[in-house]
Amino acid sequence: MYSIGIDIGGTNLKAGLVDENGLITATKKAPLRFESMEQMGETLARMAIELAEENRIPRDRVSSVGMGFPGPVDDRRGVVIKTTNIPIRFMPVAEMFRRHWDIPVHLGNDADCAALGEYFHYEDKDIESLILVTLGTGIGTGIILNGRIHTGVNGCAGEGGHIVIVHNGEPCNCGRRGCWERYASATALISQTVSAMEADRSSALWEVAGSPENVDGRTAFEAMHRGDAAAKRVVDQYVEYLADGLASFVNIFQPEVIALGGGVSNARDEDLLLPLQSLVLDQVFGKEADVHTKIVKAKLGNDAGIIGAALLGRSRRRVD
Amino acid sequence: MYSIGIDIGGTNLKAGLVDENGLITATKKAPLRFESMEQMGETLARMAIELAEENRIPRDRVSSVGMGFPGPVDDRRGVVIKTTNIPIRFMPVAEMFRRHWDIPVHLGNDADCAALGEYFHYEDKDIESLILVTLGTGIGTGIILNGRIHTGVNGCAGEGGHIVIVHNGEPCNCGRRGCWERYASATALISQTVSAMEADRSSALWEVAGSPENVDGRTAFEAMHRGDAAAKRVVDQYVEYLADGLASFVNIFQPEVIALGGGVSNARDEDLLLPLQSLVLDQVFGKEADVHTKIVKAKLGNDAGIIGAALLGRSRRRVD
Repeated sequence: MYSIGIDIGGTNLKAGLVDENGLITATKKAPLRFESMEQMGETLARMAIELAEENRIPRDRVSSVGMGFPGPVDDRRGVVIKTTNIPIRFMPVAEMFRRHWDIPVHLGNDADCAALGEYFHYEDKDIESLILVTLGTGIGTGIILNGRIHTGVNGCAGEGGHIVIVHNGEPCNCGRRGCWERYASATALISQTVSAMEADRSSALWEVAGSPENVDGRTAFEAMHRGDAAAKRVVDQYVEYLADGLASFVNIFQPEVIALGGGVSNARDEDLLLPLQSLVLDQVFGKEADVHTKIVKAKLGNDAGIIGAALLGRSRRRVD
Repeated sequence: MYSIGIDIGGTNLKAGLVDENGLITATKKAPLRFESMEQMGETLARMAIELAEENRIPRDRVSSVGMGFPGPVDDRRGVVIKTTNIPIRFMPVAEMFRRHWDIPVHLGNDADCAALGEYFHYEDKDIESLILVTLGTGIGTGIILNGRIHTGVNGCAGEGGHIVIVHNGEPCNCGRRGCWERYASATALISQTVSAMEADRSSALWEVAGSPENVDGRTAFEAMHRGDAAAKRVVDQYVEYLADGLASFVNIFQPEVIALGGGVSNARDEDLLLPLQSLVLDQVFGKEADVHTKIVKAKLGNDAGIIGAALLGRSRRRVD
């Protein structure tokens, strides 16, 4: 049997046919064109139908379709509550989809789907808890407990990027001040790098990036490797901010695994993962315990969302 | 059937006989005298045995004994990992206890037990998630998800007082800086009140408390009611700090209920609970959702720990 996962992004729809081992065997991509909620439901169903047909998979060999949306969803009622970039509010996606293809439909938040994908493919198949922290424009978090996504009472849980780490700090899009993502997302790293450049015309950050407009999440790491002190301060400070939130997550959850995703997480281990692991372990409660949360790199990259969406329909998972 | 709950405090042991409705029908108290782990196990067993005997409850009418310790425990292995005030490290309490009374023994962290007690007695019996936040010397949190205590991979989860809300802020006993409990515990409120007094000799805080040594968690609220501006600033700031952590908890968990316990939570609703509810709702993610976390006062007071400890042995609870 197969299942289909669809990742609804801000600009594109990506669908994948996912086999019983949780692997993508075929994909299909389309630009997102939103006209109405009705049309959107039909577009999603068409996409799934075509993906199956193009790959000669009869419909009865597809057990379910899962969709990951950039916003909170209520899977029990089959409703997308809201999305960040698309004008969707309380859209009964599951019902709209099933008018075109009557199949079990599951909805998830995109960060949650990605976490489910990483969880499914984590090397140790016995774990029950994993938190995926994706460092991107913001910080997305997906929380898997007891093998399931933790969605909360209203589908809005798992917004770990919006815990305050600086009381009364920088304003966040969410309306709070001092949210973790304002300090530890890729966007934050970039703006910290730009500030350091502008404060020091002699910094190797200029050699690496040329100009502030070219700064990306790798700039500070590269300049640090050229021995630049300003770049090293940026990286050290960034790792500290990242550790603040991660150690808080450990103190609250003590999950088996925290996986780091997003472009920034691809920095060399000695630059990011290792200092982070040591800073977090240094700060957590229960240092005396003989088991600790493992902090690792996520491994599915952009496929995590599609795989996780496809897995939403499977009861408790497990590749054995 | 009955179960017995024992609350192991820093100075006293309190045991309670708890009936099927989760109510305490008899209690027993003893000073904590720690000589050795061996003796401690025996003392606890003796206490439970005597509690049953003194109340003429035959041993076969007691289904289990639960104990709440001020530190992390590993219930599966029956081990207390560590406690804050008593020199216990990796103590196999369950086994030691059962040498004297062979009965199912369960271990919990005291804050977790209190949360379980509040959960069991919460008016709406259909809820599955509740977080108890106890404002005391520190901030204790107990997290109930899907009707069970969330203990994490090593028994050390639920240390919500130790999430950072002020990056690089005040040093905390746990080794981190800027932990929530440094700003929003009863201790923190008292020290904020004392600072405000010392900064303003004309403040009504002096009338209320007489001297800084007499300040307690009620002082600022009382002086505020006499129209004192300094006291109002203390209260407003304190509520802000409290909201910081609570809104972060909502963003992560979106639990059905957050219950506030500890002496400070007894402030008048218009002084604490109502402004807090409005500040938190203002800050949380998913304002569009049609269901929200309820923030309420805890209601069991000091009994919560004993009741919750006694309930540890019951599979999923429910007073129907």
